[in-house]
Amino acid sequence: MSDERDPPLPGLWLAEEGPEQDVVVSSRMRLARNVDGYHFRSRFRDGEGERLEQYLHGVLTEVDPSFTYLSLADTPQTLCEVLFERHIVSQEHVTAQHPRGVAYTNDGTTSVMVNEEDHLRIQVFGPGLDLETLVANVDDLDDRIGERVDYSFTPRHGYLTSCPTNTGTGLRVSVMLHLPALSYRPDNSRPGTQGIVKVHNAAQKLGLAVRGMHGESSRAEGDFYQISNQVTLGRPSSQAIGDLLDALPQVLLYEREIRAALLKDDRTRIEDTVWRAWAVLTNARQITSAEALSLLSSLRLGVCVEMIDGVGLGTIHRLMIAMRPGHLQRRAGSELKPEDRDIVRATLIRDTLLGTDGN
Amino acid sequence: MSDERDPPLPGLWLAEEGPEQDVVVSSRMRLARNVDGYHFRSRFRDGEGERLEQYLHGVLTEVDPSFTYLSLADTPQTLCEVLFERHIVSQEHVTAQHPRGVAYTNDGTTSVMVNEEDHLRIQVFGPGLDLETLVANVDDLDDRIGERVDYSFTPRHGYLTSCPTNTGTGLRVSVMLHLPALSYRPDNSRPGTQGIVKVHNAAQKLGLAVRGMHGESSRAEGDFYQISNQVTLGRPSSQAIGDLLDALPQVLLYEREIRAALLKDDRTRIEDTVWRAWAVLTNARQITSAEALSLLSSLRLGVCVEMIDGVGLGTIHRLMIAMRPGHLQRRAGSELKPEDRDIVRATLIRDTLLGTDGN
Repeated sequence: MSDERDPPLPGLWLAEEGPEQDVVVSSRMRLARNVDGYHFRSRFRDGEGERLEQYLHGVLTEVDPSFTYLSLADTPQTLCEVLFERHIVSQEHVTAQHPRGVAYTNDGTTSVMVNEEDHLRIQVFGPGLDLETLVANVDDLDDRIGERVDYSFTPRHGYLTSCPTNTGTGLRVSVMLHLPALSYRPDNSRPGTQGIVKVHNAAQKLGLAVRGMHGESSRAEGDFYQISNQVTLGRPSSQAIGDLLDALPQVLLYEREIRAALLKDDRTRIEDTVWRAWAVLTNARQITSAEALSLLSSLRLGVCVEMIDGVGLGTIHRLMIAMRPGHLQRRAGSELKPEDRDIVRATLIRDTLLGTDGN
Repeated sequence: MSDERDPPLPGLWLAEEGPEQDVVVSSRMRLARNVDGYHFRSRFRDGEGERLEQYLHGVLTEVDPSFTYLSLADTPQTLCEVLFERHIVSQEHVTAQHPRGVAYTNDGTTSVMVNEEDHLRIQVFGPGLDLETLVANVDDLDDRIGERVDYSFTPRHGYLTSCPTNTGTGLRVSVMLHLPALSYRPDNSRPGTQGIVKVHNAAQKLGLAVRGMHGESSRAEGDFYQISNQVTLGRPSSQAIGDLLDALPQVLLYEREIRAALLKDDRTRIEDTVWRAWAVLTNARQITSAEALSLLSSLRLGVCVEMIDGVGLGTIHRLMIAMRPGHLQRRAGSELKPEDRDIVRATLIRDTLLGTDGN
């Protein structure tokens, strides 16, 4: 099938503008759904996974003929890596071995994983904070699939899911926040006095989780944090979103206030950090992913507080994805050793920020 | 005395070109001399220091009317710091309390300390490596002073000095070397395998000392090392210089060979180091002296191997002195707290390297 050999890549929606983008990088909603009459994935009988994937492939193609559908068993590892780095599939979905697939739209804002932890994981994404639009989009897609599929559902428990924490609405809302000021700890201050610690504590009381981009629970790489609802059982989806919507304005206000205070009280240090980040990003000849993320975070702060102009947030977001190993290897057209990735990454960042990259 | 209130500063000869400057930053010769009929400084009787200083002040003004002579007791601390940072006086000479002084030429290549460890410390400096010229200059000055002063001298011991290691010729020759390649230690290599360790060991056998710019014996700040002869007792000055002259070509060759090998085998890493140094030096808003020295060292290597152009070695050498605390405070016209010095230093370096500094 030629459409599987050269499938269109999902678009980099993260490079678009979105509301509240000085603090909110992106938002995601996902629904967990299972199909009545099939066992949960961990209890598939012989051949059940193949049958279900084939069935859902057909359903999804009917629901939206513009979907690109990939059976991951037939998909090259390099492409799977790229899809993972664009948030279209989870890491577990890439590394699994059973029959499984993914459908996505060309703009990359919608994907449906088939046979992940649940039979269906319906995901919608958007830049910045616009949960209302995401709710509308994910509900619409959920309805259109639900017209064709019998979901596992009981009036008492709601949607049944493989893991009980998802049962009920099956909804998880995650918002990626950039909190450099809340993460900032002045020299000589006591450990644990940063604002981010207070955010963690407050979020926990609301049943919200705060994690680093890569799951860290303390100070996150690049000061990027995901905040998400946790338990969906027994709560209507509106309430899960409501708790997040109630908490977010506080976090945003808090981050913005500390940014303003830092700019007032510690401007030279912030300028130093921002300009060093710009300097190294545009001059390094080799750079690790962790260092680059940390410097892009500083640069992002510089752009948000208007210290740096000529660089858009979209460019920074695009780099955050394009500099990851799968994207670098796809760009290079071959597998790369880590030290060679560091060189290709430095070149990509330099060329992109200095505007010599046609990509 | 108005000439002591606004004395001309000694010139920054280090910003001039010199032979072998890719490796040799500068050379210095000094002679230790004492005056017959006076006690060594540590044994001065009441009033002896004043009398000797007055006497030698007169002698030096006769020897070279163009000398600027400063009695350090009457010299502001800020000016003393500047003289120290230009190598005109030693740290001990600045902080001492007894009657003492210094004479220097306008170009800063010659100075004579009065009542330092010995009654007279005659010093000549030059950029790069040109010991023959320095010998001629220091001998000439020594002769002209010796015509007017009875030196403490015995045929058996030579010139008598306060510390026995200087007795004999009283000559110390020091050469400041920039050895980034010999100091370079690739990741994962065993400690102590750098070339600089071999240089240390070889130098020791020749009775030569290798020290960091600030006296460190292992890897030096900025990879700047002083190599000097040690014992002068019982050896003619020609031999002390001879040993150094014998050893230096080996060290220079060794450093150059490793530079060439690194550029061949590890070019990306060297480019990365050089360009990051340039980037941070031209963008930082605050920078410590230690970080700046280390980055200037990398930049210097980049200039020597022609990776960076548009920056002269003289500019780097000038910055190495102008960024020191005394110079920064003189520039600012007031005492500066260390954190404020870091800001003024960053501005000076940025403006100088980007060519917006008129100084």
